[in-house]
Amino acid sequence: MRFFSDNAAPVHPKVWEAMRGADSLDTAYDGDRWSARLDAAFSAVFGRECRAMAVTTGTAANALACAAMAEGHQGILCHEEAHIEMDEAGAPGFYAGGAKLMLLPGAGAKIAPETIAARLDAIRPDVHQVQAAGISITNATEYGLVYSADEVAGIAALAKAGGLKLHMDGARFANAAARLDGDARAVTEGVDLLSFGCVKNGGMSAEALVFFDTDLYAATDYRRKRAGHLLSKGRYLAAQILAMLEDDLWLENARTANAAAAMLGAAAGGRLLYPVEANEIFLKLSAEEAAGLRNRGFDFYDWGPFSEEGGAARLVTSWQHEAADVQPLADAIAAL
Amino acid sequence: MRFFSDNAAPVHPKVWEAMRGADSLDTAYDGDRWSARLDAAFSAVFGRECRAMAVTTGTAANALACAAMAEGHQGILCHEEAHIEMDEAGAPGFYAGGAKLMLLPGAGAKIAPETIAARLDAIRPDVHQVQAAGISITNATEYGLVYSADEVAGIAALAKAGGLKLHMDGARFANAAARLDGDARAVTEGVDLLSFGCVKNGGMSAEALVFFDTDLYAATDYRRKRAGHLLSKGRYLAAQILAMLEDDLWLENARTANAAAAMLGAAAGGRLLYPVEANEIFLKLSAEEAAGLRNRGFDFYDWGPFSEEGGAARLVTSWQHEAADVQPLADAIAAL
Amino acid sequence: MRFFSDNAAPVHPKVWEAMRGADSLDTAYDGDRWSARLDAAFSAVFGRECRAMAVTTGTAANALACAAMAEGHQGILCHEEAHIEMDEAGAPGFYAGGAKLMLLPGAGAKIAPETIAARLDAIRPDVHQVQAAGISITNATEYGLVYSADEVAGIAALAKAGGLKLHMDGARFANAAARLDGDARAVTEGVDLLSFGCVKNGGMSAEALVFFDTDLYAATDYRRKRAGHLLSKGRYLAAQILAMLEDDLWLENARTANAAAAMLGAAAGGRLLYPVEANEIFLKLSAEEAAGLRNRGFDFYDWGPFSEEGGAARLVTSWQHEAADVQPLADAIAAL
Amino acid sequence: MRFFSDNAAPVHPKVWEAMRGADSLDTAYDGDRWSARLDAAFSAVFGRECRAMAVTTGTAANALACAAMAEGHQGILCHEEAHIEMDEAGAPGFYAGGAKLMLLPGAGAKIAPETIAARLDAIRPDVHQVQAAGISITNATEYGLVYSADEVAGIAALAKAGGLKLHMDGARFANAAARLDGDARAVTEGVDLLSFGCVKNGGMSAEALVFFDTDLYAATDYRRKRAGHLLSKGRYLAAQILAMLEDDLWLENARTANAAAAMLGAAAGGRLLYPVEANEIFLKLSAEEAAGLRNRGFDFYDWGPFSEEGGAARLVTSWQHEAADVQPLADAIAAL
Repeated sequence: MRFFSDNAAPVHPKVWEAMRGADSLDTAYDGDRWSARLDAAFSAVFGRECRAMAVTTGTAANALACAAMAEGHQGILCHEEAHIEMDEAGAPGFYAGGAKLMLLPGAGAKIAPETIAARLDAIRPDVHQVQAAGISITNATEYGLVYSADEVAGIAALAKAGGLKLHMDGARFANAAARLDGDARAVTEGVDLLSFGCVKNGGMSAEALVFFDTDLYAATDYRRKRAGHLLSKGRYLAAQILAMLEDDLWLENARTANAAAAMLGAAAGGRLLYPVEANEIFLKLSAEEAAGLRNRGFDFYDWGPFSEEGGAARLVTSWQHEAADVQPLADAIAAL
Repeated sequence: MRFFSDNAAPVHPKVWEAMRGADSLDTAYDGDRWSARLDAAFSAVFGRECRAMAVTTGTAANALACAAMAEGHQGILCHEEAHIEMDEAGAPGFYAGGAKLMLLPGAGAKIAPETIAARLDAIRPDVHQVQAAGISITNATEYGLVYSADEVAGIAALAKAGGLKLHMDGARFANAAARLDGDARAVTEGVDLLSFGCVKNGGMSAEALVFFDTDLYAATDYRRKRAGHLLSKGRYLAAQILAMLEDDLWLENARTANAAAAMLGAAAGGRLLYPVEANEIFLKLSAEEAAGLRNRGFDFYDWGPFSEEGGAARLVTSWQHEAADVQPLADAIAAL
Repeated sequence: MRFFSDNAAPVHPKVWEAMRGADSLDTAYDGDRWSARLDAAFSAVFGRECRAMAVTTGTAANALACAAMAEGHQGILCHEEAHIEMDEAGAPGFYAGGAKLMLLPGAGAKIAPETIAARLDAIRPDVHQVQAAGISITNATEYGLVYSADEVAGIAALAKAGGLKLHMDGARFANAAARLDGDARAVTEGVDLLSFGCVKNGGMSAEALVFFDTDLYAATDYRRKRAGHLLSKGRYLAAQILAMLEDDLWLENARTANAAAAMLGAAAGGRLLYPVEANEIFLKLSAEEAAGLRNRGFDFYDWGPFSEEGGAARLVTSWQHEAADVQPLADAIAAL
Repeated sequence: MRFFSDNAAPVHPKVWEAMRGADSLDTAYDGDRWSARLDAAFSAVFGRECRAMAVTTGTAANALACAAMAEGHQGILCHEEAHIEMDEAGAPGFYAGGAKLMLLPGAGAKIAPETIAARLDAIRPDVHQVQAAGISITNATEYGLVYSADEVAGIAALAKAGGLKLHMDGARFANAAARLDGDARAVTEGVDLLSFGCVKNGGMSAEALVFFDTDLYAATDYRRKRAGHLLSKGRYLAAQILAMLEDDLWLENARTANAAAAMLGAAAGGRLLYPVEANEIFLKLSAEEAAGLRNRGFDFYDWGPFSEEGGAARLVTSWQHEAADVQPLADAIAAL
């Protein structure tokens, strides 16, 4: 059983079904019937008017959001271990014309409002220094922690006071929302742009960029095309997203993944590096223990190098991991 | 029956089958078994060693090719009606750091070697003028004309002599190759980069960028990721492409489309604006004739405005258009 | 005597004097007393409130103007022989994030309003095509022609109607203004940004970018710094510009140059390719005639290649060319 | 007496004289006799063949160097308080197509080889992470410390081993060289590109970018023009630089400034935050002490905010500060 990444999971049957349902000749690009339903579907999920566009990767969604927040001579505050900083090959700098990511510390890849405030204060308001125009937070974070609605509100208040836009990288937003009892609205109050992940949660190739600040849509529409992210047959993307939203499949899949992670977290006990709040587990392991687990067929990602003091592993659960599938690994971890 | 665009056609059954065959957990991004087979599959098609990567749009393939050919301070020669100039929202300028497209005339969107030579001669070799670093041609062209192997060789010789890279936009390369008896090798001699289209030819969301100059692959691999075009579940793209290449489905589909276009071209006779060499037909129509055809259920694209002197229409055929499907439209055109 | 370029002339004594006058310790960058006077000085010249910043080249002024008018996914209409297209190494594409220059024809490098209108009409308002956001005209043009106030107003009306910004490249604005009896205000009505040239007109290293649309100043201030065009000792630039504006030195110098050009134009008679309206003369010459003039010590620029049908030369006059200096060349041309 | 910044000092008489000496009509841009002498002049200073180009700001020199080292998808290692990170408005990201500055810690803005090695080791060699292509160090550093020849050699060895280019920001290179007994060659061994500062050292508007890796010159020549940094009358820049190099004026001026700084450093004693090795002094001051010094006519820069625990000031000396000018401030500091 692989716990390497939710990126590696297969496509959910309902997503397949929806794509097949879109398999007739229709208008190209996003002029089709499925794409036309995205705005309403997201507005229903978030309980307020919003707009949405489909792209194929979280990197594209995040980078388009960065371009919507900042011009090239401006900056975006984010965590120093944020995905946009660490794992997207410099995409924000590409899309946003060389805009600077301004890196902030914080345990578990979570940023505290005071950290943001202090950094903003330290920027001299003159042309020699890059001025911040946006903030990007990740929910759930890169270490599987979940910002609560109150925590987001604290950051949103700072953004509003400073005239900055607020973006949420929600590659695993479903897992965060599931943790928050499905309250997608509260945790996005004050957020201007959300990268709404589907691929890690049972989709094939569709992510959504959701605009709570709908004024940002029009220019982004051009930027998406210019970046080569407006697919000729957009209906197959839109259908995937609609399948995720309808009947709350996105939450159902995330709950399954979160439950599996919780089982593993309970088994790991004191080995945990971070509380398990979504679908990622980071735990301390010696090299021998890691090898032992792998010999028994469990696959996962080494988190940093192993040294004499030991090392760590990252396990990620997905919509595929039913309790019965996870129990053997939970038992193996508990028995270490 | 719609003849609006091959972009609008559904997905070929064999492509669906291949995607379903890739629907198991595998390594993310392009570390999977299907992606690993792309290089060999294209090397077999082109009869020489090449490398290939999957992207989701022709715009992405073309723009990555532009970035591989030219730095921001350089230029790329192309036809003034090339897709990269007219219909990609400025993507080449984005990907290639502001590199300039240097526009050339030519009937039917085809560029003659002499036109290229004259333009290169006119560039002063000093720092005030943008120097050309690449040439991009489209085969089949935006007006459905096909460059022969000899014609490409003439341009390739100029490129080589001038130290320029040569890119072929092959959004409809299959249709061109079908016209040329399937000889994919000869028509790409001297070409460094090929955007190999699949989506218009029965694919869902996968295009390939083929590197005959394999040295250009490594940096492009980073640029693809940076542009957000490395999909998490790349195997579903690779599977589509492999399905097209195996058993020559790409040529079979293109032959069907070309045959349908030939039928319509024969029916159009003297109305044709260009010879029909691939799967596009441009014909003169009055506004009344256009309306009449539409009333009978035939859908197509107006090519420019209708005036008192009449107007023109673009019809595009696809892998779906069997002879029996096309006959009614052919008859209707012949009867105008 | 050299008539190669006004770029090559020495620095006017009053400009030297002004620079020496600024040679005491003062606040760095543009925090000094001279820089602080630029806005008022230009507001006086143009009879309305404007802002201004110093840069060191016309290329920088023009490219900053382009960045102020258009985002990377947009376009700027200009003449196909405009300096920004032909001789600035792609600077507009660099500063404006890959924005596209959309090239227009027109005799003498002058653009007619109808040409602009037709091009705007031809752009499909969809995300596949680059939308125009600005217009750039050159006054005096690259062929020494001068747009009148009425001609500029015609273009400005189109810009306003279409929501586009209007930039004037005034590398030789002084020569145009001198032609128009010094009425700097009328000929800039409706213009948003003006590159106000000083270097060709007796300056050493200072050009000004003038903002009639003062809202565009703030972001440009950051972009100037980011481009490395905010000089540490900005006072030496500001002093040059102030020297040009005070006591109308800019107009006086331009009148001298224009008068010299008029003498040469009168001597050239039917050889002229364009009417002489500013300080450039383009005339037909055979290779023998060109060589003959050069043998007599007159230096100038070949305009294109010499062929059997003859060729052409460009002569440019400057503030240095008093009548007595020019008479020998006028005589030599008349005697050809 | 102002100790605010060496940027604010007037122009040295020999620089004025050199500019006046260039005040005759000559070929435009850098085709003149003065520009032609730059390569030889720098080759003499550095004891090996190099090429050089004039620009008007250190920001331009540094940013061009960054563009020469890294493509947009790559990164450049530098200190987290480097001028290119803190005070150039994001210029490196602009010139180098969004390339990332990868920030390193180090006391006194100095980077240790081990810090570089550790950071390079931490970069995963895959397309998800930005790969480093260059290193930029500042000598003298932003806190007035001087890298010795051995220290530079240690970093250069790492750069060479990793296939990275090495840039030295020498805004105050003269002060560093003066500290090192004028040995410009040894301290630049292994360096590929040097921003050679003149403006802070008595120049008006000319800095030089020196290419020890001469292969990097050609593309940079285009990039300089594209950035608007090729001045029409380049001879006035070249003349400034030549004046600095000839008769070792650059070292003479730097020695004067360094001696003044040493006097102030000796007076400051235990208040010093960093050893005084070049021409900058950072010292602890209370708000009252700072006010007291200012009341007596001494001007300087607050280094960070004043709090109950006190604060700090930055004083910078220049070529103008003869011992007699500095003595009063030294006495005042000693008397605090």
